Amino acid sequence: MPLALVLERARELRLRDIDLGWTLGPRDVRIRMDVVGVCGSDIHYYRYGRIGPFVVENPMVLGHEGAGTVLECGAEVSRLAVGDRVCIEPGVPDFASRESRIGLYNLDPSLTFWATPPDHGCLTPEVIHPADLCYRLPENVSHAEGAMVEPLAVGLQAMMKTPVKAGDVALVTGAGPIGILTALSALAAGCARVLVYDPAAAKLEIAARYDGIVPVAAHEGTLAGAVRAATGGWGVDAMFECSGAAAAFSEVAALVRPGGTLTCIGMPTGPVPIDIVSLQLREIAVATVFRYANVYDRAVALMASGRIDVKPLVSATYPFGDSIAAFERADAARPDDVKIQIAFA
Amino acid sequence: MPLALVLERARELRLRDIDLGWTLGPRDVRIRMDVVGVCGSDIHYYRYGRIGPFVVENPMVLGHEGAGTVLECGAEVSRLAVGDRVCIEPGVPDFASRESRIGLYNLDPSLTFWATPPDHGCLTPEVIHPADLCYRLPENVSHAEGAMVEPLAVGLQAMMKTPVKAGDVALVTGAGPIGILTALSALAAGCARVLVYDPAAAKLEIAARYDGIVPVAAHEGTLAGAVRAATGGWGVDAMFECSGAAAAFSEVAALVRPGGTLTCIGMPTGPVPIDIVSLQLREIAVATVFRYANVYDRAVALMASGRIDVKPLVSATYPFGDSIAAFERADAARPDDVKIQIAFA
Amino acid sequence: MPLALVLERARELRLRDIDLGWTLGPRDVRIRMDVVGVCGSDIHYYRYGRIGPFVVENPMVLGHEGAGTVLECGAEVSRLAVGDRVCIEPGVPDFASRESRIGLYNLDPSLTFWATPPDHGCLTPEVIHPADLCYRLPENVSHAEGAMVEPLAVGLQAMMKTPVKAGDVALVTGAGPIGILTALSALAAGCARVLVYDPAAAKLEIAARYDGIVPVAAHEGTLAGAVRAATGGWGVDAMFECSGAAAAFSEVAALVRPGGTLTCIGMPTGPVPIDIVSLQLREIAVATVFRYANVYDRAVALMASGRIDVKPLVSATYPFGDSIAAFERADAARPDDVKIQIAFA
Amino acid sequence: MPLALVLERARELRLRDIDLGWTLGPRDVRIRMDVVGVCGSDIHYYRYGRIGPFVVENPMVLGHEGAGTVLECGAEVSRLAVGDRVCIEPGVPDFASRESRIGLYNLDPSLTFWATPPDHGCLTPEVIHPADLCYRLPENVSHAEGAMVEPLAVGLQAMMKTPVKAGDVALVTGAGPIGILTALSALAAGCARVLVYDPAAAKLEIAARYDGIVPVAAHEGTLAGAVRAATGGWGVDAMFECSGAAAAFSEVAALVRPGGTLTCIGMPTGPVPIDIVSLQLREIAVATVFRYANVYDRAVALMASGRIDVKPLVSATYPFGDSIAAFERADAARPDDVKIQIAFA
Repeated sequence: MPLALVLERARELRLRDIDLGWTLGPRDVRIRMDVVGVCGSDIHYYRYGRIGPFVVENPMVLGHEGAGTVLECGAEVSRLAVGDRVCIEPGVPDFASRESRIGLYNLDPSLTFWATPPDHGCLTPEVIHPADLCYRLPENVSHAEGAMVEPLAVGLQAMMKTPVKAGDVALVTGAGPIGILTALSALAAGCARVLVYDPAAAKLEIAARYDGIVPVAAHEGTLAGAVRAATGGWGVDAMFECSGAAAAFSEVAALVRPGGTLTCIGMPTGPVPIDIVSLQLREIAVATVFRYANVYDRAVALMASGRIDVKPLVSATYPFGDSIAAFERADAARPDDVKIQIAFA
Repeated sequence: MPLALVLERARELRLRDIDLGWTLGPRDVRIRMDVVGVCGSDIHYYRYGRIGPFVVENPMVLGHEGAGTVLECGAEVSRLAVGDRVCIEPGVPDFASRESRIGLYNLDPSLTFWATPPDHGCLTPEVIHPADLCYRLPENVSHAEGAMVEPLAVGLQAMMKTPVKAGDVALVTGAGPIGILTALSALAAGCARVLVYDPAAAKLEIAARYDGIVPVAAHEGTLAGAVRAATGGWGVDAMFECSGAAAAFSEVAALVRPGGTLTCIGMPTGPVPIDIVSLQLREIAVATVFRYANVYDRAVALMASGRIDVKPLVSATYPFGDSIAAFERADAARPDDVKIQIAFA
Repeated sequence: MPLALVLERARELRLRDIDLGWTLGPRDVRIRMDVVGVCGSDIHYYRYGRIGPFVVENPMVLGHEGAGTVLECGAEVSRLAVGDRVCIEPGVPDFASRESRIGLYNLDPSLTFWATPPDHGCLTPEVIHPADLCYRLPENVSHAEGAMVEPLAVGLQAMMKTPVKAGDVALVTGAGPIGILTALSALAAGCARVLVYDPAAAKLEIAARYDGIVPVAAHEGTLAGAVRAATGGWGVDAMFECSGAAAAFSEVAALVRPGGTLTCIGMPTGPVPIDIVSLQLREIAVATVFRYANVYDRAVALMASGRIDVKPLVSATYPFGDSIAAFERADAARPDDVKIQIAFA
Repeated sequence: MPLALVLERARELRLRDIDLGWTLGPRDVRIRMDVVGVCGSDIHYYRYGRIGPFVVENPMVLGHEGAGTVLECGAEVSRLAVGDRVCIEPGVPDFASRESRIGLYNLDPSLTFWATPPDHGCLTPEVIHPADLCYRLPENVSHAEGAMVEPLAVGLQAMMKTPVKAGDVALVTGAGPIGILTALSALAAGCARVLVYDPAAAKLEIAARYDGIVPVAAHEGTLAGAVRAATGGWGVDAMFECSGAAAAFSEVAALVRPGGTLTCIGMPTGPVPIDIVSLQLREIAVATVFRYANVYDRAVALMASGRIDVKPLVSATYPFGDSIAAFERADAARPDDVKIQIAFA
């Protein structure tokens, strides 16, 4: 039985052997994990033992932001070879489902997803996964960067659902990992500038290191005032809501230009009051995103060409043997930490 | 001074002479009005003397759903000729504004609009209007139908903002005039079927006379249940909210298919609680519309070819001299009345 | 061994036993065929033994426009049940391929397709097919209509690739079966009117029986003149080229409005000269289509709701035992024949 | 009478006084020109006295790539003030035309355009122009860069018509000024990499100085081979044709991925043979562009934020007094010249 980082129940992590019950199918590959990032959802399960309807009822291996190296290929695998370095898309859909066939495989109801109960994650030295969901990393993209593809994919998915055009100005509310990666995605997608708003100065400071990101500090007057000043009163072309805070929805019409878009990435904890009429008066559209589909290859391409640089966002790396310490660090939520990763060997 | 139907203040209408101060510019036409419809917003001003921030502070001529006949053309008018029968778009934008230039002239902040304070409407025998906003009616489209173009344009605008494709199934909530015209627009835009929901049986009954409209009665179980049954559990491709009722927003995710759209046409009286996460889980998009742009010619074409028949929706027609009676009838809001019109001569 | 209509080589058809080598997989269904239509491509193989690079090197069963009844379900099939009446999508892709995952499963290079060498077609009493590619027919859609879904799907696919909006005016060049079905698809997709052009008066006459279709006869002056007259000089919003004739491409810019679209459905026999600059001066876009993806359910819905009526297009029906006579009739290409079908039992 | 660079007839330029007949209307501004670029079309008029149907029948002032400083504002101008530094969009449409109202003001048939017969251009110390077509330059964008907005706008227009998404790979054929600016626009619009192909090594070398541009040399095997190698056999998401060479159209289907796009920017000198079937087999779409609309502000924003740097593309600057020498230099077409500019004062 392999060793793995197992969440026994809320607040109880153990590095122990566990039977994963995985077998190599003809379209699967066996992968040696090299780097796995710690995600906010991993921490949420660690703290509370659940995320909404998803409840950890049995011990579950954590981790879904992974990169590794192919060790073995199933009989029908032709796109990958042993030794290929890959990043791994953690959700496994039925590609023939009605959702998948129209390009929305992320919405397939039969999809299983690493470290979402009852399915185990990838914080274990070897995993088995469909080859169709593994993406080769070019030489100039490290495993550490490969493990950042998963959270970057969330930001890129927002760009797939938002009609961003070259020269747009965007606003991102919330400067956590997803907020920053969404801002980088917006720049990659054509924005001339991205305003980023967050009450936490330390987070803003990290975001502001990137060219094209304009930090908007909470104490310097209203957000609407800052947006008006930055856009000559016109408003941003696209607003990306990454905080999940209800307040972010209260003045959308004062932030977004006529005909612009609000894209909802952060997940509020309950219904939020929305002033529909204020949106109508500007014909503002609202897009919503859930995970991602068909963007892993895009993320890899943007890293490989240097157009998105995620390296400064890895705040610390722990060896697999210290996985529990990595989770305690991530749980501490230092304002200047963006991403904590775990490396094997 | 011409005669006109003047709203002196809330609940006080007079048919009297009034100075409209209109002069014929080089790109204008002078039009004899033939038919004007009574709109819900006319009734709202009549009842309350205001709509939101728009307050009737001075006597104002009502009416903005108009069709007539060209009497005189300004010096630079070439597209129209004296004698042309036309329907008339009531909002006059600056076509060089930033909004107009990207195709959103309905959002131009300098736009003036008939019967929206402080601008007079068209319930008067002659009006002056930019020729660019007058649309010729073919012989087989009557002035009464021409006066229905304005409310139909609201429904068609929703189709411009919603990615309807041939064979879609839609849901319209609210079966007032705008709800029915939106349902007809959805059918014209490609929907195979349109479910229409309204608590009022009389309204549903009128809607159900059209092929392709499937009435959903309030007392026959939940709306979500009806939609599930009608779509094999998949949900509708597009939901058009025309009631303005907050309740309509409460179960969108149980009504709309993965990747589908909610388009907001009705105007709720205050902020509505929206469960963003439920929308995200299905990546449902929300579109909002405000009046219309570039759809008058489409409305006329659809009437002329017989693909949209608005004739059954005109419930009663009053002569201009009985305009006040027409407003009293519309104010009574009989459940089986859809549109009340006023005819000149 | 089952009986089937076998193309031995060009011009040689036999109704004989043949081993199809089909076995029921867990996601497959076994289907009794009820009606199969004769397609232009079937006739092309019959006449020439090939279509472009696809050469009939071994005896091949013809037929790919099929509808039938489910006789048996594979172990994992849940969406269908024995006795379901279905129409059948003839192309079987790998749904996990890169093309399929972005919604373009029709472009998957590993796709197999009924009656495209080396794969057999469905002119045989029983077939085995993936359940995911079988679509249930509602009670009011006959098997004969179900067998028309395949050619209708070609027309609907054109609507998926063309930004048709309610009230558009379209032009279809070529009034063969695909031209007529494309015109019906364009009407279903929102067009107020569809001009149809063909040199053959008999074909035009059939098309013109449908409300909304406006026939344009070849001898009545230029096509461009007819389009100008019908659109007030503006041009059509969308042109659908269904003839494959090079001449159809020679005056696109005189037919299509500024910002409009040409969609290529007919397949010219060689490269056609195109005046790019004339397209640029109007920013005309060109779409191309290949077969179809994700439109079978749309076709069924449009038939079921009565918005597309294909029944008048079935010119004759032959029993399976007279399949060869059916092919001879189709090969004769009577100008007033649209679709020849073959019925089992 | 002001001094201006006047094209008397083909090959005959004079710097002389000329009556331009311009008067300041209420929505106009008077502008002191600071920098004007020499465009390929200026050179074409210089060489041949015509471009297609546009014939220089009377002496015409050249120049349409201009930036300057506002000297005087018409009575109704509020967006600009005296002293504002601006770049100037050279085409003046009727914003109320049918084309303009749907966002296509570049296609308005009544549009006048600097240095397109019979309209004079801007190679004169002062011009008068609608304020709505002048765009303020921020402090960090020079007049020289401002004069590059016009050719950059051509490249950006291509992005408005092409569904580029973050992480795409593009191909640009032709590495003249428009080719390079299109490649920079494609990168700004989200492309991870842009392959640029041109037979001229000197041009490729200039393009290759930009991060993200991958030069493809003519002598290193076929273009299709290079594209296959660069994209793992998949093809580019978008091809931008900027050479106008018929050969560029001959293998589109071997270059562009399934479902990808060809955008035509270069203007071939006659009809080009296109293999429609090869495009259909991959459902490749073709977009065409003509000049630009609504992109000047985007170009300025991308320059101001540093995301597009046009400064390296200005090869030489001549004083206005030496305008004729500037044209002779541009006419010489040195392979390492990209843009020649003329500066006033």
